[in-house]
Amino acid sequence: MLNIRPATTDDVTKILWFIRQLAIYEKAEHEVHASEDQIHSALFGHDAHCGSLIAEVDGEAVGFALYFFNFSTWLGKPGLYLEDLFVMPESRGQGAGKALLKALAKIAVDRGCGRFEWSVLDWNTPAIDFYQSLGAEPQSEWIIYRTHGEALNRLAKTD
Amino acid sequence: MLNIRPATTDDVTKILWFIRQLAIYEKAEHEVHASEDQIHSALFGHDAHCGSLIAEVDGEAVGFALYFFNFSTWLGKPGLYLEDLFVMPESRGQGAGKALLKALAKIAVDRGCGRFEWSVLDWNTPAIDFYQSLGAEPQSEWIIYRTHGEALNRLAKTD
Repeated sequence: MLNIRPATTDDVTKILWFIRQLAIYEKAEHEVHASEDQIHSALFGHDAHCGSLIAEVDGEAVGFALYFFNFSTWLGKPGLYLEDLFVMPESRGQGAGKALLKALAKIAVDRGCGRFEWSVLDWNTPAIDFYQSLGAEPQSEWIIYRTHGEALNRLAKTD
Repeated sequence: MLNIRPATTDDVTKILWFIRQLAIYEKAEHEVHASEDQIHSALFGHDAHCGSLIAEVDGEAVGFALYFFNFSTWLGKPGLYLEDLFVMPESRGQGAGKALLKALAKIAVDRGCGRFEWSVLDWNTPAIDFYQSLGAEPQSEWIIYRTHGEALNRLAKTD
């Protein structure tokens, strides 16, 4: 039986494993540098600002979601941003992904969020088809820009 | 003289005015529903999770930035996300935008962030050229998906 529940500290090892499995699927395993301590701190530390849900089938964790709250200056309200969503390949097609999204939508509504957002790789057609089927809309006119590592340090020190 | 400083509660009216000016430039003025109370609460309320910087020239506010912290599961670290950046047209070309980005990069480095990110409309060529000149990289393979309003309520209530 499918069940969605908030993650606990006992789930941290599994969550990091799910993060790695998702990164492998996204062809970015080499970019995963997170440790269990970092995930623990982000979810359960004194200034934690992320949350996580676990999808279980018959008591066994088969997927997860990790989220935080962003803010829309246009709406004047927070939004729920879904950073990671993953369901193990052998457990797909049983509604775990939809149940996770539905539980996140409920958290967003309960917390007075104006939006529920996430990002998807443009070649991930199964995910895109799934999101479209739920009524989500692509914000294709927006491009994310990023600076990190040495470029970020350089910008911080520019005169 | 150009100066960057943290916003105070006295800046809220001006910040909402800047938000509206930016939305007009982005052809989305009709999407601005935020109130002064909401901006005040997001920046200075008891569970505030946003920050704002003001750019001043000779003591007069000419631009602003509004940001919050997101989280990278790959890095295991928070990131700084710049939601809005705006400099009044008549004050552009004097370094206010770059000074705001540099101050944000410094906040990101000081807070141990792994990334500094923002989004830009794909037709906003002056902004894109500016960001590229600072070494920021487009994450063009990522598409943002969003659900809001009735679609969000529907998803929260789906069986």
